[in-house]
Amino acid sequence: MTDLTPYLQAPFVRHLGLELLASREGLCETALRVEEAHRQQDGLIHAGVQATLADHTAGMAAATHLGEGERVLTVEFKLNLLRPARGERLFCRAEVLRRGRNLSVVEAAVYDGKTPVAKGLFTLAIVPKGR
Amino acid sequence: MTDLTPYLQAPFVRHLGLELLASREGLCETALRVEEAHRQQDGLIHAGVQATLADHTAGMAAATHLGEGERVLTVEFKLNLLRPARGERLFCRAEVLRRGRNLSVVEAAVYDGKTPVAKGLFTLAIVPKGR
Amino acid sequence: MTDLTPYLQAPFVRHLGLELLASREGLCETALRVEEAHRQQDGLIHAGVQATLADHTAGMAAATHLGEGERVLTVEFKLNLLRPARGERLFCRAEVLRRGRNLSVVEAAVYDGKTPVAKGLFTLAIVPKGR
Amino acid sequence: MTDLTPYLQAPFVRHLGLELLASREGLCETALRVEEAHRQQDGLIHAGVQATLADHTAGMAAATHLGEGERVLTVEFKLNLLRPARGERLFCRAEVLRRGRNLSVVEAAVYDGKTPVAKGLFTLAIVPKGR
Repeated sequence: MTDLTPYLQAPFVRHLGLELLASREGLCETALRVEEAHRQQDGLIHAGVQATLADHTAGMAAATHLGEGERVLTVEFKLNLLRPARGERLFCRAEVLRRGRNLSVVEAAVYDGKTPVAKGLFTLAIVPKGR
Repeated sequence: MTDLTPYLQAPFVRHLGLELLASREGLCETALRVEEAHRQQDGLIHAGVQATLADHTAGMAAATHLGEGERVLTVEFKLNLLRPARGERLFCRAEVLRRGRNLSVVEAAVYDGKTPVAKGLFTLAIVPKGR
Repeated sequence: MTDLTPYLQAPFVRHLGLELLASREGLCETALRVEEAHRQQDGLIHAGVQATLADHTAGMAAATHLGEGERVLTVEFKLNLLRPARGERLFCRAEVLRRGRNLSVVEAAVYDGKTPVAKGLFTLAIVPKGR
Repeated sequence: MTDLTPYLQAPFVRHLGLELLASREGLCETALRVEEAHRQQDGLIHAGVQATLADHTAGMAAATHLGEGERVLTVEFKLNLLRPARGERLFCRAEVLRRGRNLSVVEAAVYDGKTPVAKGLFTLAIVPKGR
């Protein structure tokens, strides 16, 4: 399986505190410790933090299927914020729905403790590493 | 028009360095100075940074229409990443497409210099401040 | 539970041949017999047919939670077409992810036989019947 | 420019009554005469009809950029229903935002007379004709 280390060293997710919990072919689970700096104007966890967590975890789930010399790039995603997110730790679970030749489709759910707070659908391009 | 100051003081976007460039009824323009910490594993600006910028600017565009005692919450959004984003400064322009009683629909574009790098559609709920 | 009969009498889905297979609180399953008229230029089942099936089934899943005098209206949806759809019968299963005061979020999957061909996320408004 | 005739002969859109109004590189405009059979349970034009119109017009806009031996397939789309659609004729205008090697991103707006009733973002794959 693809080595996910480079994905975990991406500056923005290191900065936010993303941790890898588990991964296997087509699946990835992560967590993020929520800090004061992650909130929006009403004290809730910013939608952008949830989107970053979901997008990056979806990317790693897609990356588990990559061949040598391939990488993934997000083409687009849609995220529904289901409930106000308030916890001290967010979890994310992403699962590949479809692994095509050039595209992967992944769904991801974000949890605030055990409660789902966001659900998303992601389309990722599989591109050669040099490009 | 609604005072956007509280939105600009949201910890996550202050942390990322969001600036308000312009706003009027139904419209908001912002900028963000890109730092090393905003990148993903290939050196591009992380999709989560673009999503945060677009979401927050869309929220402020919707907020220009609020009555006293109302606030906005993102219900969902979809973002297409059109091109790799590499610039030192991102700009965002968000425009309200539909202002309903309980919901606003906003479109937002993110630019890397003059080139559009992302385009999104956002649905926001208009809710009482206490809720 | 809400009576789904009026939803099944909607002219467009009657015209397409939608059938209700099962429903309970927060869930709805339907089927559609595919006809020649449902295809696109390459002989595949048109994305619009899949979208109609998924949207209507999502609406009925949300409708299972309605109170007296309420109805649902689609606010927005996103659909990923996972694989070319070719079967003679499509199935759809929709499940409510979040039932809020004014909004429901529903996910729906479309199957061509047992193979998933599309997956979507739907936001629906709960509105008074007169409005 | 690509000949759009095969797209106009797609059974589902012929059946719904789609007409081509105009097209040029990266742009397509269509119309659809609304019939009783296109409505949902409250007499409004079904979201699935609007989605079909928008999807097919987006596909034709992307098709204007195709090379010999290429065709387009919808990967995914998101549609916001902005207002109840009631007119006797719907119009759609689709414009390519980004023409990549393997993917096109298109935005499309649906109008009920002059009023915008839906807005969407579409991702389409550019694939060889035989595949």
